[in-house]
Amino acid sequence: MSLYSTYFYSKEVNDLLSNEEFINQMLRFEGALALAQAENGIIPKLSASIINEWCSADYIDIEKLKSDIKLSGNAAIPLIKQLTQVVEKINPEASKYIHLGATSQDVIDTATTLQMFYFTSWLDKKLIVIINQLNALSQEHQDTKMAGRTLLQHAKSINFGDKINKWTRSIRLIRERIEESGKRVFTMTLGGAVGFGNEFINDKVKESLIDILSLNSPIGVWGGVEFASILGSLSGYLGKIAKDISLLMQTEVAEVFEGAAEGKGGSSTMPHKRNPVTCAAIIANTTRMPHLVASTFSSMPQEYERSVGLWHSEWEVLNEIMLLIGGSVDRTIELLKDLEVDKKRMSENLKITNGLIDAEDISLALAKKIGKTQAHELVQKACKIAISEQKHLKEVLTEMGVILSDEL
Amino acid sequence: MSLYSTYFYSKEVNDLLSNEEFINQMLRFEGALALAQAENGIIPKLSASIINEWCSADYIDIEKLKSDIKLSGNAAIPLIKQLTQVVEKINPEASKYIHLGATSQDVIDTATTLQMFYFTSWLDKKLIVIINQLNALSQEHQDTKMAGRTLLQHAKSINFGDKINKWTRSIRLIRERIEESGKRVFTMTLGGAVGFGNEFINDKVKESLIDILSLNSPIGVWGGVEFASILGSLSGYLGKIAKDISLLMQTEVAEVFEGAAEGKGGSSTMPHKRNPVTCAAIIANTTRMPHLVASTFSSMPQEYERSVGLWHSEWEVLNEIMLLIGGSVDRTIELLKDLEVDKKRMSENLKITNGLIDAEDISLALAKKIGKTQAHELVQKACKIAISEQKHLKEVLTEMGVILSDEL
Amino acid sequence: MSLYSTYFYSKEVNDLLSNEEFINQMLRFEGALALAQAENGIIPKLSASIINEWCSADYIDIEKLKSDIKLSGNAAIPLIKQLTQVVEKINPEASKYIHLGATSQDVIDTATTLQMFYFTSWLDKKLIVIINQLNALSQEHQDTKMAGRTLLQHAKSINFGDKINKWTRSIRLIRERIEESGKRVFTMTLGGAVGFGNEFINDKVKESLIDILSLNSPIGVWGGVEFASILGSLSGYLGKIAKDISLLMQTEVAEVFEGAAEGKGGSSTMPHKRNPVTCAAIIANTTRMPHLVASTFSSMPQEYERSVGLWHSEWEVLNEIMLLIGGSVDRTIELLKDLEVDKKRMSENLKITNGLIDAEDISLALAKKIGKTQAHELVQKACKIAISEQKHLKEVLTEMGVILSDEL
Amino acid sequence: MSLYSTYFYSKEVNDLLSNEEFINQMLRFEGALALAQAENGIIPKLSASIINEWCSADYIDIEKLKSDIKLSGNAAIPLIKQLTQVVEKINPEASKYIHLGATSQDVIDTATTLQMFYFTSWLDKKLIVIINQLNALSQEHQDTKMAGRTLLQHAKSINFGDKINKWTRSIRLIRERIEESGKRVFTMTLGGAVGFGNEFINDKVKESLIDILSLNSPIGVWGGVEFASILGSLSGYLGKIAKDISLLMQTEVAEVFEGAAEGKGGSSTMPHKRNPVTCAAIIANTTRMPHLVASTFSSMPQEYERSVGLWHSEWEVLNEIMLLIGGSVDRTIELLKDLEVDKKRMSENLKITNGLIDAEDISLALAKKIGKTQAHELVQKACKIAISEQKHLKEVLTEMGVILSDEL
Repeated sequence: MSLYSTYFYSKEVNDLLSNEEFINQMLRFEGALALAQAENGIIPKLSASIINEWCSADYIDIEKLKSDIKLSGNAAIPLIKQLTQVVEKINPEASKYIHLGATSQDVIDTATTLQMFYFTSWLDKKLIVIINQLNALSQEHQDTKMAGRTLLQHAKSINFGDKINKWTRSIRLIRERIEESGKRVFTMTLGGAVGFGNEFINDKVKESLIDILSLNSPIGVWGGVEFASILGSLSGYLGKIAKDISLLMQTEVAEVFEGAAEGKGGSSTMPHKRNPVTCAAIIANTTRMPHLVASTFSSMPQEYERSVGLWHSEWEVLNEIMLLIGGSVDRTIELLKDLEVDKKRMSENLKITNGLIDAEDISLALAKKIGKTQAHELVQKACKIAISEQKHLKEVLTEMGVILSDEL
Repeated sequence: MSLYSTYFYSKEVNDLLSNEEFINQMLRFEGALALAQAENGIIPKLSASIINEWCSADYIDIEKLKSDIKLSGNAAIPLIKQLTQVVEKINPEASKYIHLGATSQDVIDTATTLQMFYFTSWLDKKLIVIINQLNALSQEHQDTKMAGRTLLQHAKSINFGDKINKWTRSIRLIRERIEESGKRVFTMTLGGAVGFGNEFINDKVKESLIDILSLNSPIGVWGGVEFASILGSLSGYLGKIAKDISLLMQTEVAEVFEGAAEGKGGSSTMPHKRNPVTCAAIIANTTRMPHLVASTFSSMPQEYERSVGLWHSEWEVLNEIMLLIGGSVDRTIELLKDLEVDKKRMSENLKITNGLIDAEDISLALAKKIGKTQAHELVQKACKIAISEQKHLKEVLTEMGVILSDEL
Repeated sequence: MSLYSTYFYSKEVNDLLSNEEFINQMLRFEGALALAQAENGIIPKLSASIINEWCSADYIDIEKLKSDIKLSGNAAIPLIKQLTQVVEKINPEASKYIHLGATSQDVIDTATTLQMFYFTSWLDKKLIVIINQLNALSQEHQDTKMAGRTLLQHAKSINFGDKINKWTRSIRLIRERIEESGKRVFTMTLGGAVGFGNEFINDKVKESLIDILSLNSPIGVWGGVEFASILGSLSGYLGKIAKDISLLMQTEVAEVFEGAAEGKGGSSTMPHKRNPVTCAAIIANTTRMPHLVASTFSSMPQEYERSVGLWHSEWEVLNEIMLLIGGSVDRTIELLKDLEVDKKRMSENLKITNGLIDAEDISLALAKKIGKTQAHELVQKACKIAISEQKHLKEVLTEMGVILSDEL
Repeated sequence: MSLYSTYFYSKEVNDLLSNEEFINQMLRFEGALALAQAENGIIPKLSASIINEWCSADYIDIEKLKSDIKLSGNAAIPLIKQLTQVVEKINPEASKYIHLGATSQDVIDTATTLQMFYFTSWLDKKLIVIINQLNALSQEHQDTKMAGRTLLQHAKSINFGDKINKWTRSIRLIRERIEESGKRVFTMTLGGAVGFGNEFINDKVKESLIDILSLNSPIGVWGGVEFASILGSLSGYLGKIAKDISLLMQTEVAEVFEGAAEGKGGSSTMPHKRNPVTCAAIIANTTRMPHLVASTFSSMPQEYERSVGLWHSEWEVLNEIMLLIGGSVDRTIELLKDLEVDKKRMSENLKITNGLIDAEDISLALAKKIGKTQAHELVQKACKIAISEQKHLKEVLTEMGVILSDEL
């Protein structure tokens, strides 16, 4: 496991996507396939039941599996061989019916889909946590005024609560997209040798298998890329939150802070530093993610009925995408949990432009009387004077004879 | 326009996404905004009607606009300036109400969305054409046997019609995803200076504007990346078709061909060549696309209420994505329209492995009698003999005492 | 040309890489090939001289060329056809010797290399300008103290001049890499049909041609990807400068500013805004660049002696890379030319941490007496007190009984 | 470690880049720093010697380190803390001098550079092996005629030896680029808190440290991206070899084969399959690599003196790049070691176009008599007849009255 397993990653997701769990999902497919075939009279029920019973990573020599992959070119072939040997010792007859009519891609893609499915169950719960955290923060700050900033410049005052609501909406959209895409993404793969079926994996077997695995019907098109795209967007949304918080935490801005903790965010040489280390992890993952998502797109134009290499290129990349999302999600929850907001500083920062931040409000108010262009130009002129003479904008405008309503 | 405007691109899409048309969409937003504001009593109806009337690229000096963008940093500011000057000459009063309460990002993002929307209308019609072409081909070849190939090796015979149906399903999925994503993608942007509205762009104005522009309600989250992801998948699916056809057109395979045409696919030096030049264009676009899609993901973690540079990085990339899809779609239609299929050669190629291509069918048939593993091993042994002694697989099996049913 | 031709791009580079200029380079190859063949007695001198004379885009119907590319699959075939027709009218005999022994890839790759070469000549001059600008700035600010910032937090004071020197070093490295890579990058391609030569393009012809074109000897390996990699690094270095300046220009930091200009960096709705629009363009290009560079890497594993699609995928991408670098370079020169530095503000900002920014210096000084760990912990404790009690760090340390030397 | 540790990866490189080895390199830096400081009178020699003695991963609790990284945001801070505790127990005085004047980035970047350096030593040896393998193959096949193919079509006959020489040249270029880039890539990082040094890490210390570590002088610019670019190119070149071999191994082509081995390249369902599983691994890695290289480019425009997240994004990606190259290199050596070449089939395949593959040679020969265009057209006409009437090209030409010299 990576040296950074607690930093860029999530312990829960690391466990969910471990080698052992992947093997378990492959075996789950094999066990369920036997049961589904037995249910439809294709293989003996007893054999199926024995096969299914021994379908567990506990009986697999994972190191041997790893070393055999180099010869076989995928994980399914040596796994099925080991499973067959295990079952053979118990019941030679049963061992004859393992993996009947299926091909390596059926096992691997379906196992991957099962992992995507369990990961998504984990993810969805965590997204609800984030949404709840954001809602609570937004509630608390529905009247907290702060500077709205565009192109890194003070633009116009906003409510921190409203800003948070935008973050929330983006997370909600991800939940919506995951929900909608399920019928395409969480689908079983079962096509046999070249993907067009055979008598051992007929429609009835498929139906039974779908039932057992709680997946959707095969659609003959791989859902991994759409899934990666959605996670890529989630990564961008989480990265946006972390980016904003890291900027608001700047020494010169000092409005919002990652929670402090004993030993957290220190420097190896600067005793006073309080670094946004949680934001850094999320931003790092967000920087890597577009490239990983692109890698799944590059694996699409596969040759004929199964590719030399493009299929293979996706296995680890899909995993890495889920693993990094795991980390970003966990870090975001930690970030929001301990977030410190300095309302006073927000309010003070609103004043540093000597009223310029209200320029648009004033300009729009004047526009009603003298038209937008003239108002814009008049206020722009006043702004220039305010800047060069270091006066407050309203003072300048008053000197220019402009009468402003009280609320501005 | 690119030197390769007819090759990697589509004339229709090039026109749809021209500079002039983008300006027209920005102006369409400005005209519609004025009308929507007038409808809700915010600006005079006559002014709105005059503004709307002059909202056309015909009155805009595009070269000046281009040169002004360098100072303004976006296309909206100089456009609104020009529009204001145009309207001012006609009716100074009306010119005061242009772009009231809106900001550059409102215009630019909504205009981009309108282009995405019109592009999608074009695209959807073309996808239906492709689906119909594929259906006709599939119908014609529902009984055309050919070699199914995995990892570039003959694997098992398939029907060409079934193979085509898989291509069709992938295109259908794109139509489904476009349909579903519309509520998130084809949404208006109208937020004013920092994205949180003001009195000139209140909810009623928004409603009217949505109505006029036939877009969906603003959701505060940009849909461009989801749109790019869908087009990225489409590119992969079209690339897969082109890849397969280019492989089937190999001199040694010679089963399917791009249509010939006078002067098409020749070489500058080899008189006999018939190159898959249409496939080449589609594959080229498919190779570039993942990187362009990734670029939109990289533009996501934007600072504060509007980014320095990330927003800007998306403008041309989204356009390029649509332009390349335009080309891939048009080329695919041409490719399928003139596709030549050599059924006879398909049938002959099935024989080149001396029966090995039927090994799985035989193995599965035997499995019913002697179990999967034993059948697999027995047939594998027969295959090795067939290869080394250059005999037909069935002959070898017969010599080994295996009795095969007639249909195998 | 893009709507943003003056913003993301450079006029000079746009001209250098125009369709017309690319055609001129292809024709330059054809003319030079004829001369080289004549020089070595392979074709008549008079014919070569006539061919060479008519090798100019002025005699080419570019619109026709564009429309023919779709059939031919590349620009060389229809260009040679047009050239042959042009020469045929003047001298039928001469027209027989055009493109003799060469193939499309020879023309296209060599023409691209010539463009890369001329672009590099332009670039190198501009990089010298940037280095000179940076040197002057560094000279001016060799004693300008400012806050050094890590992870967006004040860390320790630095000299602005030293900071600028790091920028300069990165640009120098690019010049060094361009210089070193020339022997691999600026090489002629001349291989004939499948890349292994023929009697018309023998070693002597190659030598003559290299001479005429001032390129390096063919090495049988395409240099475009290495070239793209170097430009990708340059893009990162320029982006780093723009990123730093945009951050230093933040309302709350206000230490360095893009030059102001009438109408520059304004907002369409906020009269007071002064946006870092030049930085925005550079950052936008820098965001896109890694994906374009990656696209050239994806085009590498080409099939056999010439690829279906991968070769084609590189043509526009290499161009786009040079075009965007053109823009980033020109914008950087403008940015540095008008850069405003507020030394006073830099000095004031050094004080906002109440002495915390000197913590490391103090800690290192103490380390000499009491060891690094203890010094670090002691100063860290003092920092915490300074923050919570809003006192100056030195005051706190004095209260803690620490005696500091005067220079700290 | 990945489930695919033997397939996409190299055991030797996995070991070289293990967590433990990375920790060892970080400690090597710390030990050497102490020695270098002692050498220059900055810390006591005895202390330095004690520090250096305990600088080994053997004394580090790696699991604790992993879990501490989440708080510290990098691996250096908790490592130095552990090292300090280890040394403190032995010699409290010595523990005061650990990491004196250095910052986290100094340790991490230098340790990464050391890993890049050791990896390169490994790599260079392996590239020599590959070059020797290719030279032997080329020698053996200097007269082996085969079809040269462009756009997947038979184009013209070539020598297999010449084809191999092109592969060799590409590998040689990589060695050349590694050699040249060393002065920029294999450089020490030692800048202290914000990168501009301090008295504990003065020029003399730097010199001593460079000496001890056998690295080049710090240049203030990170070499990781250039290193990644070179490896990206290597990946493309290895991918090209694997792509060609996988194509030549197609059932219909059958000219070159991956070596067979008991249990290698089988299918889980098709007994006769012999899959190019080694090629598949190399192609998979080659598909992923451009995206990983791009990820390093995306990490370039870092904020101020150290970034929030961009620096962090590079750590694992650089590692992954080296790991995948390790796999591709080892697989290539295996591939070439057991390569089977079917010369007879190569020769037979040359005949399948009924002489069309000689069309260019004939055309060029005729060109000398009747001019290139006429020759091209005449031979093109003959080719069409040869195809439609299924005759040999020479027969057709003879019927058309063309007299061909004997050697054609």
